[in-house]
Amino acid sequence: MFSKETYIQRRTALKEKMGSGVLLFLGNDDYGMNYAGNTFRYRQDSTFLYYFGLSFSGLSAVIDIDADKEIIFGDELTIDDVIWMGQQPSLKERSERVGVVSTMPADSITDYLHQCVREHKTVHYLPPYRAEHKLKLMEWLGVPPMHQEACNGFIRAVVSQRNFKTPEEIVEIERACNVTADMHIAATRMLRPDMYEYEVVAAMEAISGANNCGTSFATIATINGQTLHNHFHGNRVKSGDLFLIDAGAETEMGYAGDMSSTIPADKSFTTRQREVYEVQNAMHFKSVEALRPGISYMDVYDMASVELVEGMKALGLMKGNAQDAVREGAHALLFPHGLGHMMGLDVHDMENLGEIWVGYDGQPKSTQFGRRSQRLALPLQPNFVLTVEPGIYFIPELIDQWKAEGRFTDFINYDKVETYKDFGGIRNEEDYLITENGARRLGKKIPLTPDEVEALR
Amino acid sequence: MFSKETYIQRRTALKEKMGSGVLLFLGNDDYGMNYAGNTFRYRQDSTFLYYFGLSFSGLSAVIDIDADKEIIFGDELTIDDVIWMGQQPSLKERSERVGVVSTMPADSITDYLHQCVREHKTVHYLPPYRAEHKLKLMEWLGVPPMHQEACNGFIRAVVSQRNFKTPEEIVEIERACNVTADMHIAATRMLRPDMYEYEVVAAMEAISGANNCGTSFATIATINGQTLHNHFHGNRVKSGDLFLIDAGAETEMGYAGDMSSTIPADKSFTTRQREVYEVQNAMHFKSVEALRPGISYMDVYDMASVELVEGMKALGLMKGNAQDAVREGAHALLFPHGLGHMMGLDVHDMENLGEIWVGYDGQPKSTQFGRRSQRLALPLQPNFVLTVEPGIYFIPELIDQWKAEGRFTDFINYDKVETYKDFGGIRNEEDYLITENGARRLGKKIPLTPDEVEALR
Repeated sequence: MFSKETYIQRRTALKEKMGSGVLLFLGNDDYGMNYAGNTFRYRQDSTFLYYFGLSFSGLSAVIDIDADKEIIFGDELTIDDVIWMGQQPSLKERSERVGVVSTMPADSITDYLHQCVREHKTVHYLPPYRAEHKLKLMEWLGVPPMHQEACNGFIRAVVSQRNFKTPEEIVEIERACNVTADMHIAATRMLRPDMYEYEVVAAMEAISGANNCGTSFATIATINGQTLHNHFHGNRVKSGDLFLIDAGAETEMGYAGDMSSTIPADKSFTTRQREVYEVQNAMHFKSVEALRPGISYMDVYDMASVELVEGMKALGLMKGNAQDAVREGAHALLFPHGLGHMMGLDVHDMENLGEIWVGYDGQPKSTQFGRRSQRLALPLQPNFVLTVEPGIYFIPELIDQWKAEGRFTDFINYDKVETYKDFGGIRNEEDYLITENGARRLGKKIPLTPDEVEALR
Repeated sequence: MFSKETYIQRRTALKEKMGSGVLLFLGNDDYGMNYAGNTFRYRQDSTFLYYFGLSFSGLSAVIDIDADKEIIFGDELTIDDVIWMGQQPSLKERSERVGVVSTMPADSITDYLHQCVREHKTVHYLPPYRAEHKLKLMEWLGVPPMHQEACNGFIRAVVSQRNFKTPEEIVEIERACNVTADMHIAATRMLRPDMYEYEVVAAMEAISGANNCGTSFATIATINGQTLHNHFHGNRVKSGDLFLIDAGAETEMGYAGDMSSTIPADKSFTTRQREVYEVQNAMHFKSVEALRPGISYMDVYDMASVELVEGMKALGLMKGNAQDAVREGAHALLFPHGLGHMMGLDVHDMENLGEIWVGYDGQPKSTQFGRRSQRLALPLQPNFVLTVEPGIYFIPELIDQWKAEGRFTDFINYDKVETYKDFGGIRNEEDYLITENGARRLGKKIPLTPDEVEALR
């Protein structure tokens, strides 16, 4: 937890931005896996963590700006709780550590909010992303789930604070990044043909665990790198495979790291693998070089995409003018996702608040395939933390579909692309802090180039 | 997954037991940790797994007994799903593998159930234990959360099947138990003073992961064994500590193992630790010896509790007649939980269906402290699988409270008990299958006695 002053300052800034109203913060509860008492690893809501710092189940908070009140709602421990869960500081003491002096029993929030509604005060809340949030808003504010509309002003105020990482936050993020890098380096060293994917996952997560970290998202570790969100780990690695890993650690305070690596199952890459890998590297280094305040991240996405097309032209898979190909969206056959995203207390930072606010400042998004997956289009600013993660994938089903539809035949040599349908996918990913003049990589270096990867094999 | 015949046979037996009505099975959905797209490890509902075998998000199922229909509701993959999640067999194919020929789109269940309600058919469901279940029942059946009452007949029918493990289930449970034993043996070997608790957890979970298993519940691994459900792992182990572990693996099919160990931080136990450990062992061995068809598990609990009192009398911590002490509840100061529980697709098997049905066949439970935590009071029957896990704990807050209230001064020597307030807790736990004549331990042996533990140090 940060100092009391950090949380007080964050809430003060929020109150100034909002001006008036009642702000409701829904903490996350423990959630049953297969019965209520057998819960998933606890994860507090990130905005609750940001303003109130307390990471346990059963809490809500209210900032009543007009009445100048800050209240944390939750229950004190009973003797039964002590027997089963151990002695803990009281809620009152814990709340004081984050600068909140008023606490009330958990179930009194219903009356409190009903009273606000009776007094015609506006109760603002953020988008409910868990079923438990929807039940609470229904009970507390009488709003059925389909009519639960979050307050855009509240969202924008929160985004305008959480977007900019403070030095103490960067220390935490860098700690997550260092553990993340260790996970990737260990996997790069250990991978061998005949291993199961889950063995690699177990070894990586043993490293996050031994550093008192969780994982910031479900680990991807697969011989089917062309499947973008592949959480299946049951395949056996075989000679000739490319193995794609996307994984990150999450510190006890909730800050994320997020990196990707692509490793050959064998000691070294084949010529064909190395050729495509070098195109991915060109996309990556071009993007990293471009990072600086003022450049829009959509422009960086375009630069990476042009590098892809140029590289693919050199290999004979694409043709025509690269700028035109990217403008029209032909590159997305091989690069169907975005270049990166903001990172902080969430690995996709503030995704629950809406990409349109976090990455687009409320402006409409492109609907073009590939480009529409870019999560961040805004000009970069100092103290943004973001990922850089270009990738190249040969997705048989997508190739078949586009070819059948005759899409972009001016730019894509389908006959050649067809011969890569068994290739898989390549992605490398690092995390960067935007500085006053450019950008700084966060965390230890992981192997990025074919030579660097092979040196660890 | 088991064979198609297994699932058909289970459903056929259920339909015969129920006779009539519409049975609704709520599958579990992916659930967001800190935003909707960042989900916890997926866990299907165990009853859904038992009757329908399919383990992924977005499914529901209906058995309409009168209309002789079985339908799985869920959506087929789109091309976007294939790009992000990979090619998968169709829902239709997967459903056929569990013997269900009818599938319908996920959102058609609303109309289907509304139609049942209009036709005055009774729609039975099991207790909703996740917020997402409550939202679904509200939308599909028009029943607000506070009025969602499960059908006791449905519960009893399910319990009467799931209580009895088949040979193919026992193979799976034993696989979970073997991995669980490996986790405990590794921890017993590795523990050293100055380690952090989370380092032990990471090493244990690396073993479950490397065996393609998850954990069947949140691992307990703590120097504060007197705290019964202690999921904090941030303490540093110091010389003189007792380290208590309660952890289990869960196989890919969802079957659980569950064992406990208690290890000295040093190479060997102190005399005082060994004395109490031997009392715990006496409770354990007495309980295991008693396991056979026909004996009520509450009687075994009583036998273990009497062993505790006799042992504590020998150490000077208790006095008086042991049978009387147990009948009145004095033993629960040091043994405040139950002796064990059913185990299967849930580590506390069917806890979501209600302990009163699983462990008490609908009969009222004791309200006595300690005894009321016994989850199973029924006569044992062949093919029950259950845990044996007596423990001895010195919980300072509980000792203070009972002493202040003058409770059981005829049985408890508080002056002596006071000197153990820094002792911690001891629990050992194994898993047993009730056979025709007795019981068989499931999985590899873990060290249970002080000598066996020290041999691995």
